[in-house]
Amino acid sequence: MILYTLDLLGVAVFAISGALMAARKELDLLGVVVAATVTAIGGGTLRDLLLDRNPIFWIADPTYPTVILVAALLTLLYTRRARVPEGALRLADAGGLALFTVSGAAIAARLGLPAPSVVLMGTLTGCAGGLLRDVLCNEVPLILRRDVYATASIAGAIAYLVVWRAGGGELPAVLVGMVFVIVLRVAAIYRGLHLPTFPLRDHTKDEEGP
Amino acid sequence: MILYTLDLLGVAVFAISGALMAARKELDLLGVVVAATVTAIGGGTLRDLLLDRNPIFWIADPTYPTVILVAALLTLLYTRRARVPEGALRLADAGGLALFTVSGAAIAARLGLPAPSVVLMGTLTGCAGGLLRDVLCNEVPLILRRDVYATASIAGAIAYLVVWRAGGGELPAVLVGMVFVIVLRVAAIYRGLHLPTFPLRDHTKDEEGP
Amino acid sequence: MILYTLDLLGVAVFAISGALMAARKELDLLGVVVAATVTAIGGGTLRDLLLDRNPIFWIADPTYPTVILVAALLTLLYTRRARVPEGALRLADAGGLALFTVSGAAIAARLGLPAPSVVLMGTLTGCAGGLLRDVLCNEVPLILRRDVYATASIAGAIAYLVVWRAGGGELPAVLVGMVFVIVLRVAAIYRGLHLPTFPLRDHTKDEEGP
Repeated sequence: MILYTLDLLGVAVFAISGALMAARKELDLLGVVVAATVTAIGGGTLRDLLLDRNPIFWIADPTYPTVILVAALLTLLYTRRARVPEGALRLADAGGLALFTVSGAAIAARLGLPAPSVVLMGTLTGCAGGLLRDVLCNEVPLILRRDVYATASIAGAIAYLVVWRAGGGELPAVLVGMVFVIVLRVAAIYRGLHLPTFPLRDHTKDEEGP
Repeated sequence: MILYTLDLLGVAVFAISGALMAARKELDLLGVVVAATVTAIGGGTLRDLLLDRNPIFWIADPTYPTVILVAALLTLLYTRRARVPEGALRLADAGGLALFTVSGAAIAARLGLPAPSVVLMGTLTGCAGGLLRDVLCNEVPLILRRDVYATASIAGAIAYLVVWRAGGGELPAVLVGMVFVIVLRVAAIYRGLHLPTFPLRDHTKDEEGP
Repeated sequence: MILYTLDLLGVAVFAISGALMAARKELDLLGVVVAATVTAIGGGTLRDLLLDRNPIFWIADPTYPTVILVAALLTLLYTRRARVPEGALRLADAGGLALFTVSGAAIAARLGLPAPSVVLMGTLTGCAGGLLRDVLCNEVPLILRRDVYATASIAGAIAYLVVWRAGGGELPAVLVGMVFVIVLRVAAIYRGLHLPTFPLRDHTKDEEGP
């Protein structure tokens, strides 16, 4: 039940982020719906494929397409009247990342998978939708920009797992995991939080390799 | 039986479109075969993965690789003797889009899935092969250009579903669905048919976000 | 047992190649780990999805994430102290290509699939990880550059299959297949080996199509 709610919310939030990106790219009406759909179902579909869950979460349930369509159309109506702030897109994306990270981790944890796989499933589930959106819309994926993105997802999945294994119960674990993701993302967006990079010494010559 | 024929035809047509694109990009011989293969099996493979159909349609049947290889080599022979018109690539692509859209929708409809999922499966199956081809060949995906592409696929899937649910029989439904896709694509290519876009008011400042 | 060793080695080698690419791109610490992970598990995950093997090879076995993490961190330590030669990246990639090509072909052969599917599975398994790495890191995929890449993978899969079907035993077939891939890749990298391309006559006008 909690997982179903997480999925629905994640689908709605990622649909909005996909629609916002498509609107910014001035795609046509259906392009907006397609971008919203792919962003919304990408992460959960990968999760269900990897864990061999059948049927895939959206296939047998007409609620999901309905939610996506409504979210995409409302987003479009809104963007016709107002500018799309860059921040709105990134906040919607942060929400989707949090929801799907925790949903992927929660499902993997219930299957009794080892801890690294739980974290990896959470991260893949969280990141896949936004990555697909960015590749489809020909943007440099958010995940690759030099701020905390996959890191936030990994931290959230670990936080979820720690609370859940410590017997904290499903709902608190979900909330703690989501808070970790969102706080880290917001800090990255507004405070420029980032991990150390690894500048390499003089490798300009290599760049010219064939 | 109808579905098997659709799949084989779709595979042949998408193999041609993949080989044409690779030849234009001056990929090497095997690059052409690889592009043809990925384009040809991409959509159907996604369909079978999502619907948990086993084995994947091409895995246990040597007919498919044979068809792909023959189609790719014939295309290469042809392109050595003549210019590759942009139109040929787009027509082959339209044919593959029509065939796989209807095949995805038909298989989903037979499984008794709800209408939105039937349409979504048709669209994903139709669009995945060409999208993979374009991403692999480093082209802006046809699906993203400002003409009717995913729209044509969605319209075809809906048309198929309407005729099929109305008791029109398998073959008429297939034909109606395909005609919708092809007519819309041809209109988009030659008449510049397109959906309205949503120009945004003054968002230039946002474009400069980090 | 041989297959498990192949998988572990392939994972380690592709993890190094993913980490090297990420370090060159100056991704952050977790970005490096994510790139290493996606590169390392991409090919085998596609293989297991297509062949409906459950669970996916890394999901129930904590050895894989551990190997990936150690390989990524050692690579980072190394790149902090020394320049990353272009050659190292390509050699690690060639090793991963060889290992996963043979592992994909071997698993498909044991399932009794027809020969073209065995070769195709080997090629997809071998190429997917590196392709994902390049797409994620926004590089032109190695597979598309004008040297022998997919060709090496196809040749290795065929070599494996020939030895295996001739009753040569598992280990010799594996070794022969890997030698084919690596020799062809090294020849392509250092000797400029490439297949003929197919230059097209005067198609400049087509390039300007809509």
